[in-house]
Amino acid sequence: MANHPAISDVPIGIAATGQRHEFDSMGTVEVPADKYWGAQTQRSLRHFSIGRDKMPIEVYHAYGIVKKACALVNQAGGRLPGWKAEAIIRAADEAIAGQLDDHFPLFVWQTGSGTQSNMNVNEVLSNRAIQLLGGRLGSQEPVGPNDDVNMGQSSNDSFPTAMHIAAVQLIDDRLLPELDRLASAIEAKSRGWMDVVKIGRTHLEDAVPLSVGQEWSGWASQLRAGIAEVERSRTGAYELALGGTAVGTGLNAPRGFSREVAARIAELTGRPFVTAANKFMAQGSLDAMVRVSAALRGLAVALMKIANDMRWLASGPRCGLGELKLPQNEPGSSIMPGKVNPTQCEAIVMIAIQVLGDDTAVAFAGSQGNFELNAMRPIIINNVLHSATILADGCARFREFSVEGTDLDRAKIAGYVDDSLMLVTALSPVIGYQAAAHIAEKAAADGSKLKEVAIASGKVKEDEYDRIMDPGKMIGEGLAGA
Amino acid sequence: MANHPAISDVPIGIAATGQRHEFDSMGTVEVPADKYWGAQTQRSLRHFSIGRDKMPIEVYHAYGIVKKACALVNQAGGRLPGWKAEAIIRAADEAIAGQLDDHFPLFVWQTGSGTQSNMNVNEVLSNRAIQLLGGRLGSQEPVGPNDDVNMGQSSNDSFPTAMHIAAVQLIDDRLLPELDRLASAIEAKSRGWMDVVKIGRTHLEDAVPLSVGQEWSGWASQLRAGIAEVERSRTGAYELALGGTAVGTGLNAPRGFSREVAARIAELTGRPFVTAANKFMAQGSLDAMVRVSAALRGLAVALMKIANDMRWLASGPRCGLGELKLPQNEPGSSIMPGKVNPTQCEAIVMIAIQVLGDDTAVAFAGSQGNFELNAMRPIIINNVLHSATILADGCARFREFSVEGTDLDRAKIAGYVDDSLMLVTALSPVIGYQAAAHIAEKAAADGSKLKEVAIASGKVKEDEYDRIMDPGKMIGEGLAGA
Amino acid sequence: MANHPAISDVPIGIAATGQRHEFDSMGTVEVPADKYWGAQTQRSLRHFSIGRDKMPIEVYHAYGIVKKACALVNQAGGRLPGWKAEAIIRAADEAIAGQLDDHFPLFVWQTGSGTQSNMNVNEVLSNRAIQLLGGRLGSQEPVGPNDDVNMGQSSNDSFPTAMHIAAVQLIDDRLLPELDRLASAIEAKSRGWMDVVKIGRTHLEDAVPLSVGQEWSGWASQLRAGIAEVERSRTGAYELALGGTAVGTGLNAPRGFSREVAARIAELTGRPFVTAANKFMAQGSLDAMVRVSAALRGLAVALMKIANDMRWLASGPRCGLGELKLPQNEPGSSIMPGKVNPTQCEAIVMIAIQVLGDDTAVAFAGSQGNFELNAMRPIIINNVLHSATILADGCARFREFSVEGTDLDRAKIAGYVDDSLMLVTALSPVIGYQAAAHIAEKAAADGSKLKEVAIASGKVKEDEYDRIMDPGKMIGEGLAGA
Amino acid sequence: MANHPAISDVPIGIAATGQRHEFDSMGTVEVPADKYWGAQTQRSLRHFSIGRDKMPIEVYHAYGIVKKACALVNQAGGRLPGWKAEAIIRAADEAIAGQLDDHFPLFVWQTGSGTQSNMNVNEVLSNRAIQLLGGRLGSQEPVGPNDDVNMGQSSNDSFPTAMHIAAVQLIDDRLLPELDRLASAIEAKSRGWMDVVKIGRTHLEDAVPLSVGQEWSGWASQLRAGIAEVERSRTGAYELALGGTAVGTGLNAPRGFSREVAARIAELTGRPFVTAANKFMAQGSLDAMVRVSAALRGLAVALMKIANDMRWLASGPRCGLGELKLPQNEPGSSIMPGKVNPTQCEAIVMIAIQVLGDDTAVAFAGSQGNFELNAMRPIIINNVLHSATILADGCARFREFSVEGTDLDRAKIAGYVDDSLMLVTALSPVIGYQAAAHIAEKAAADGSKLKEVAIASGKVKEDEYDRIMDPGKMIGEGLAGA
Repeated sequence: MANHPAISDVPIGIAATGQRHEFDSMGTVEVPADKYWGAQTQRSLRHFSIGRDKMPIEVYHAYGIVKKACALVNQAGGRLPGWKAEAIIRAADEAIAGQLDDHFPLFVWQTGSGTQSNMNVNEVLSNRAIQLLGGRLGSQEPVGPNDDVNMGQSSNDSFPTAMHIAAVQLIDDRLLPELDRLASAIEAKSRGWMDVVKIGRTHLEDAVPLSVGQEWSGWASQLRAGIAEVERSRTGAYELALGGTAVGTGLNAPRGFSREVAARIAELTGRPFVTAANKFMAQGSLDAMVRVSAALRGLAVALMKIANDMRWLASGPRCGLGELKLPQNEPGSSIMPGKVNPTQCEAIVMIAIQVLGDDTAVAFAGSQGNFELNAMRPIIINNVLHSATILADGCARFREFSVEGTDLDRAKIAGYVDDSLMLVTALSPVIGYQAAAHIAEKAAADGSKLKEVAIASGKVKEDEYDRIMDPGKMIGEGLAGA
Repeated sequence: MANHPAISDVPIGIAATGQRHEFDSMGTVEVPADKYWGAQTQRSLRHFSIGRDKMPIEVYHAYGIVKKACALVNQAGGRLPGWKAEAIIRAADEAIAGQLDDHFPLFVWQTGSGTQSNMNVNEVLSNRAIQLLGGRLGSQEPVGPNDDVNMGQSSNDSFPTAMHIAAVQLIDDRLLPELDRLASAIEAKSRGWMDVVKIGRTHLEDAVPLSVGQEWSGWASQLRAGIAEVERSRTGAYELALGGTAVGTGLNAPRGFSREVAARIAELTGRPFVTAANKFMAQGSLDAMVRVSAALRGLAVALMKIANDMRWLASGPRCGLGELKLPQNEPGSSIMPGKVNPTQCEAIVMIAIQVLGDDTAVAFAGSQGNFELNAMRPIIINNVLHSATILADGCARFREFSVEGTDLDRAKIAGYVDDSLMLVTALSPVIGYQAAAHIAEKAAADGSKLKEVAIASGKVKEDEYDRIMDPGKMIGEGLAGA
Repeated sequence: MANHPAISDVPIGIAATGQRHEFDSMGTVEVPADKYWGAQTQRSLRHFSIGRDKMPIEVYHAYGIVKKACALVNQAGGRLPGWKAEAIIRAADEAIAGQLDDHFPLFVWQTGSGTQSNMNVNEVLSNRAIQLLGGRLGSQEPVGPNDDVNMGQSSNDSFPTAMHIAAVQLIDDRLLPELDRLASAIEAKSRGWMDVVKIGRTHLEDAVPLSVGQEWSGWASQLRAGIAEVERSRTGAYELALGGTAVGTGLNAPRGFSREVAARIAELTGRPFVTAANKFMAQGSLDAMVRVSAALRGLAVALMKIANDMRWLASGPRCGLGELKLPQNEPGSSIMPGKVNPTQCEAIVMIAIQVLGDDTAVAFAGSQGNFELNAMRPIIINNVLHSATILADGCARFREFSVEGTDLDRAKIAGYVDDSLMLVTALSPVIGYQAAAHIAEKAAADGSKLKEVAIASGKVKEDEYDRIMDPGKMIGEGLAGA
Repeated sequence: MANHPAISDVPIGIAATGQRHEFDSMGTVEVPADKYWGAQTQRSLRHFSIGRDKMPIEVYHAYGIVKKACALVNQAGGRLPGWKAEAIIRAADEAIAGQLDDHFPLFVWQTGSGTQSNMNVNEVLSNRAIQLLGGRLGSQEPVGPNDDVNMGQSSNDSFPTAMHIAAVQLIDDRLLPELDRLASAIEAKSRGWMDVVKIGRTHLEDAVPLSVGQEWSGWASQLRAGIAEVERSRTGAYELALGGTAVGTGLNAPRGFSREVAARIAELTGRPFVTAANKFMAQGSLDAMVRVSAALRGLAVALMKIANDMRWLASGPRCGLGELKLPQNEPGSSIMPGKVNPTQCEAIVMIAIQVLGDDTAVAFAGSQGNFELNAMRPIIINNVLHSATILADGCARFREFSVEGTDLDRAKIAGYVDDSLMLVTALSPVIGYQAAAHIAEKAAADGSKLKEVAIASGKVKEDEYDRIMDPGKMIGEGLAGA
């Protein structure tokens, strides 16, 4: 079969300078000659040069998978000749591998459907395929951006599909492993300090004792629950819109296309993607992404509590709580010599707050769909990927540079237990709440030791006091309470 | 056994006027003589008279269950004499049934642990039990608020337990049934209108056709997915803190108490409550409630889209889209005679926005725990129950007074399909995207019909045009796209 | 002129039971016979029974002012006979005074324009005027709800007018005085403790000293700046939509009506209300209310910082920072005897978070206007008044029950200053940052006193050390820094 | 005086490869040899490699101004030798001009005080000054990062100073001019279309008429009010913390330093910066930035309404409202040929939502200060500058590519006015609200013209009808209503 052009092994890149003509249905546009993109990308660059926010590169990598899967299915269905499909697939593989990243320049703040980024991909893969096949860049021949690369697709179904793939991959490949490492690091500390008795604090006020390991176990449990929620939130993201085309009906896509492309994407990614049961929901809403964002927010809420606890427990060194000693990574002050600050904790707190801000934008945007399209896609994917990225990296640094190197000031911890008045609680079942309260109040007022006041009260004898008031016995038997 | 007082059948209520003395560890306080509450409730009323927000009554009903379960377990364990337990349980049953509602007057803005509401319950059940046993109100004898009603408990474990019970019950009993009814009503409309072809709209602009039933199916799917998420979010809420007592270690509660009280609560409520595996998380965080709130927010996001679509599709009557006819429930204007507005949709939109605001408060508060306590409980339970309540009632009214009575303007719907230029999309696979675009652009510019421009273009013959351009065939074959 | 009915002195109230017939353009409706409201109120009650949120009563009091001002202007303009005006004005005065509160039962979640609450007012004033004039309730004669009470008005212009009046009055009468009292209380403490040297803390870590009074002055300044912003935010709220009628053009209102009613409202309220220069903005947006809400949020942000600082500085009593002693208002725990918690601070923190949540709802709703109406009015006024109310009451309780009674633990405060290593900063200009850092690091590592390490370093002599290292000199000369 | 090194004209840049040794109080660190930064920057790069968010470059430009002003004041005060000051100032000028941008690599997520970015500036200016003076890079001689460049400063006072300068400059130089241009463009359209009568819409439903120019005037007024608020919000930002040093007391800064540096900064920037009256507020809070963010949010709320109105009014072309014709900038769909979408409006809507999300993060972070420092500075300045940037650019694109090229479909506009039933409102003062309502309802039910129903009703004669029912007279007399 010599009736069609053959792929030659042209390396990526266009050795040209100046401008090249590209066209779309509205006419001709000049683009930089060394870039693969076409007319619509160039129009978007001009019309939407807004700030510094670029569409996240992960979206384009995911779009490479979408285009490859469609080419495979279109080829198998006899709609796309094998040689065309092969060229598109090769270009798509390059996009997936990040080799075409420089050719995806568009901003987040563009059309709400993501059409311009879809067309960017279509144009780049088209021109790259043309190059591989020895054609003329900008000719749209023999591989057209709309008719071939976008065959059977609309931005309306392909962009949310790329969003779902990008989100799932980032969560699986970067976020969840880092979360697991952080939780594991905290669990290791928890195990190691399970028998170190410390004072508990509620309302910031002294309370009854627990062990350091128990306290850390609570943080680890929060993280584990947050991880489980993030995992669960992928369920909706596994459902793909592809095959709905323009409004969800699948117009211009062949029967069976939805299921076939979803199966290919599952195969290419090794993840349980399926076609969405209702394409009108899949394109008219982004509810699944709102739920992913909510799960990320849940983690942020947990992380904020953990980081706050750590920095407070490490406060000092002389005038704070001082139970924990965090690693000293860098000088903390430009003016106060020798000062060291809980900077990793502060970064986590800021990241957590940012994730809440990102999530506010996601939920708001998620509510603003109309009819057959939620045209708030770029803002949603940008915020979701942003949150996942800073959570992943933030947890990695926090673990490496703070959690793993944290140590205890055991003397301070023991001193607090010894001083605290709230041990009186253990007397309560024996002498009654009111009598116990009066003992604690008297000790507080006098600044005296609990024991002497208790015995002076006549409510309890010394041996009984000593038997009951053993902090080591007050911490119970594990993590599940009584 | 005549060694203890017997319960007599005293009806609820205190026939007294003026003030009664009550005491706590800080001294004596005067309370209204016709109320069951004691000193700590009265102190809270004085110190926290802030706005009009009262702790939601559902919290007290749930607290009744907590107190009853504890009394049963304490009795079974031999720690609480049967006759005391019986009196407490009877009072608790009255609280559960709402018969003591007038005796729970406290504000939301109180101590962050909810201790004052716990003590309110302890005091009311103590005095009611005392009354039933023929004792003197305010004497704390023979049933004390701390030593008996609160036996084996702390606010720190019992309040979040009551929060979880209250949230689950409200969601199960009021929210989920209303959501299901609304989804069912939309599904019924969807089925009835599955073959009515209408124009699709993306970016608010004319797109290719779909059926009215398909459009409504998208809304129903959004709701069903939202319902599933709310159901799933209960998982965390089924885990109860009770048995952790003051800081999670279970101090002053007997071994096995956690599991036993959870089992009793499961039995009393008929729901799968279990004891939390980690009590330090269960008391130091409210992450499970943050996740419940996120699920409610997910629903709000979906509802906003649905209500917005409905009111836009019903806009007019002469100068809007006019595809839907909503029921005319009331005159819409004090100045414009005969005006009718989509007021139920507006209420849903406002409710959705409020739920997002409530949820912002919940997530923020959820992040603000410290050490062994998240002292932001009242704000969290108030917002979660508020969201669930207005969603439940809002969905009920929306269904009754808007969705169920909605009808179609079939002439208008058909007219749009006939006029639209976007049907040209179906020609695209035959004549190519660019040629199709030029046809649509020419028709738009001239105000002419698509068919005449298409045929004049020479790209397609009339019989082929007629065969392809059948809107009824463009809507595909169901809900899952191609 | 005896051609018209005379007002007789009928007391407020309707001595009737059962139902009364009322009508509107859609037909006849039965209403409770002892209530003044009419058909449209009753329809709203049925269609919008959602949750427990009632339209805030302040809105109705403000609406009384609107109706009175309009009646006065309509009478002066000869459009409304004096006897009718007089009856309407008398009824309006009763509404303003709160005597008709029981007759305003509607929910927040109603039509987005507030029309139903406007009609509620129109109906109640109509029937009350009819009663005063000896007519038949429900007859709309001789004073009609639309033609007379609502003369020259629309809900579209009158409801935002009532919103502005209600917000300004609540802010002026309740919020600003309480804020001022709180700021004054903090300022008094600041002055009293201006010379008490304490350790500073940055990043929660020990820093160089300042005085307790300086620290408190920062809090007071935050509040004063927040107060100034709330005052400034009223500027937009002083602009009234009244006179725009249905869409801003003033249709059906006589020329000059806008200015005249604004002048009357200014007169009746003693506040600088003016007519809005652009009625299309005044009715199509609620931007002025969004700005009021932002100012309230600014206060919340400041209050949260203040309350957090106070509760942390008061943490202990034995295992916390312990610099402040807050008043002990109530027992803090149902299980831990003698425990006292910073409950007023917690209430303020929760209130601050709620205000941020309320504000999120306000801003979102503010963005959702369409064309000539922002139909998100009920949610906005409800949240703004809610925030202002809980801030006002919360500040009052916080001041009374916490700030005013706060005292210092001077021994603890002095001990921290004595212990801290960060005094080394004062050596820095003399011996250089790096040398000073090494001294601090060595003291920290050894647990030794700064002085001995400093002198052992050879970088500074003892007399020079003693001269420089005087904490009392390190706190500068007031509030404005160097 | 030849006792000191002279500045030689070394161009910017370090001709070296590999690594260079730099040190701080914690020891020695290797840095890239071609970069000016030192040990602490390198430590931060390693410990805080999180996501892609870099500290905005505007912060460093502003920091250049801070360092220059301090050097000038320190020189004038005789604390810094002239030749040192001169070298620092020259390096600072280069930073201000953006010539050292490549040497400021740090991430947003770092220490909450911004110390690492301050030290980055100190290190870069120190090394650049050393280079200019012929010294050895990394030697900290003769110009040290802490002792010389940072003289009299702390990060705690200098970083918020740089934040304020950066925010004010960006708002003044980029945001306000673009907002003014957009408002002017809308005002020009408003004037041009002041007499084009169109149908009003409230609740999305047909209402009484107004003119196109009136409608656009409302949008312009919203923008003008938003601009005024942004201008006003700078007031707080004009107050500078510099001179408070570590905790606000001004330790290690000479008396008068605060006022002198503020005066220098005012001079260098041409803006009314002053020293903050209370340094404890200026460093312990970021309330002034929270208020700037609130003002940006106010604009976002207004812009969202405007952009939404425009895209709805332009919806169609055949099946929407179709009153406006927006410029056709690019093909709108990858599958639907000839489709054009309101993409600039969509970008504005997304930008508005993002600004609300950013602002949520700012307000939350603003509430999280503790004691003498709000350690949430990087997140706050990053979000504020982000919001200002995307608002500025977004408004520019929106104006250029959408607003300025918008045109009217006058036939459609006139047709709506002709069809509408709400003109009946003008009859209401003549025949009463109820009679008018029945006419409108009958016309709606029959689909008949208002006029025929009105005359058939016998309530109004034809000549009177024609006289009253003139839409051109219903639009009133300008912008201020009646």
